[in-house]
Amino acid sequence: MASRAVVLLSGGLDSYTAAAVAKRDGFTVCALSFNYGQRHVRELDASRAVADALGVEQHLELDLDLTKIGGSALTSSRIEVPKDQPIDPTVIPSTYVPARNTIFLSVAMGWAEVLGASDIFIGVNALDYSGYPDCRPEFIYAFEQLARLATKAGVEGGALTVHTPLIALSKAEIIRLGLSLGLNYGLTLSCYDPGIDDRPCGHCDSCRLRAAGFAEASASDPLIRAAG
Amino acid sequence: MASRAVVLLSGGLDSYTAAAVAKRDGFTVCALSFNYGQRHVRELDASRAVADALGVEQHLELDLDLTKIGGSALTSSRIEVPKDQPIDPTVIPSTYVPARNTIFLSVAMGWAEVLGASDIFIGVNALDYSGYPDCRPEFIYAFEQLARLATKAGVEGGALTVHTPLIALSKAEIIRLGLSLGLNYGLTLSCYDPGIDDRPCGHCDSCRLRAAGFAEASASDPLIRAAG
Repeated sequence: MASRAVVLLSGGLDSYTAAAVAKRDGFTVCALSFNYGQRHVRELDASRAVADALGVEQHLELDLDLTKIGGSALTSSRIEVPKDQPIDPTVIPSTYVPARNTIFLSVAMGWAEVLGASDIFIGVNALDYSGYPDCRPEFIYAFEQLARLATKAGVEGGALTVHTPLIALSKAEIIRLGLSLGLNYGLTLSCYDPGIDDRPCGHCDSCRLRAAGFAEASASDPLIRAAG
Repeated sequence: MASRAVVLLSGGLDSYTAAAVAKRDGFTVCALSFNYGQRHVRELDASRAVADALGVEQHLELDLDLTKIGGSALTSSRIEVPKDQPIDPTVIPSTYVPARNTIFLSVAMGWAEVLGASDIFIGVNALDYSGYPDCRPEFIYAFEQLARLATKAGVEGGALTVHTPLIALSKAEIIRLGLSLGLNYGLTLSCYDPGIDDRPCGHCDSCRLRAAGFAEASASDPLIRAAG
């Protein structure tokens, strides 16, 4: 039997690609998604479509209302999503959600332990990204170190590996990789602030990074084609 | 203005004492409790009573259904709470909840960042405890290291301190400390498997560690007196 891997699946382009890499590499995919009160909760529908398309073994959705904490444009209605602002990777933008990846990885670690899995996949990216601290290799490495001490599996010697297959890729390279794996990016949602008709706004950092990635990959975005 | 500290408050004896230490040390207490599907969900009522008694500034309760992950006697009805078993700190018992403290600390870290707080208190104890890996000093230290890389506050140089005032105390020492601070342990609930009348079972590890602690401290447990 193939080994299981817990894959954090947001419904965006990156996590879909990371999940496909897990599958390509022979893992049985157990997908984990969060309804955390995100402004773009529509991405959960995308995560279900993506999970179906990948044929995952299980798809676990958990609720954790981070709007009670707030502090981010994605979890507080009082903070606006930046539109058409210069993207400067040295500045952490207001769409940063405090501790989000640490929380998600912690839950993934717990589920992995119960599943007997030693592998987690997360679609973080440190190149064409928005300056989020919890998307960097040094953060991932520190989390792996923590995992050795945090769980029964860890103290019994079962190291947890956090795979970040996209971390050093440009958005265009991610898209090329996904297209080579036959992915249908029309299923995904990247926009932080979609309209009531679910159309991408086209102006947030996530929309613009996606558009630039498709352009650089000389590909057309099926999501835009469908909406156009 | 006093600095804020996020205090993980379960409603048990240890976290109540840790919160009281935070208050004694001059922090404004922001209490954080989780409804995680724990068998002893009645402890949330205790956490509210304790928060009131301490006069905390805020008490945030979050839902995160860890029964969907299971793997513990506390979060799975299919696993029984051990009763009257020898307590061997070298064996991790079935009441261990995978990744629980990592998850709780991660959320506390996020809330601390939003509050502008640099301090977290957690009532973990590595002496009279049940062998849980995520109650040990090395785990706490690794979490602090992770925090430096995980958040905006961390990368901007604001180190997060995870205070563990009880980590090296025996249960009797914790109780003596709490009594010296005027705490009413009758407000707390330690039992992992309380009856429908909320009475402690008296037979789980947590009940027995508590009873032994009161005995060694030559004190009587007001919870037992009230129930008796």
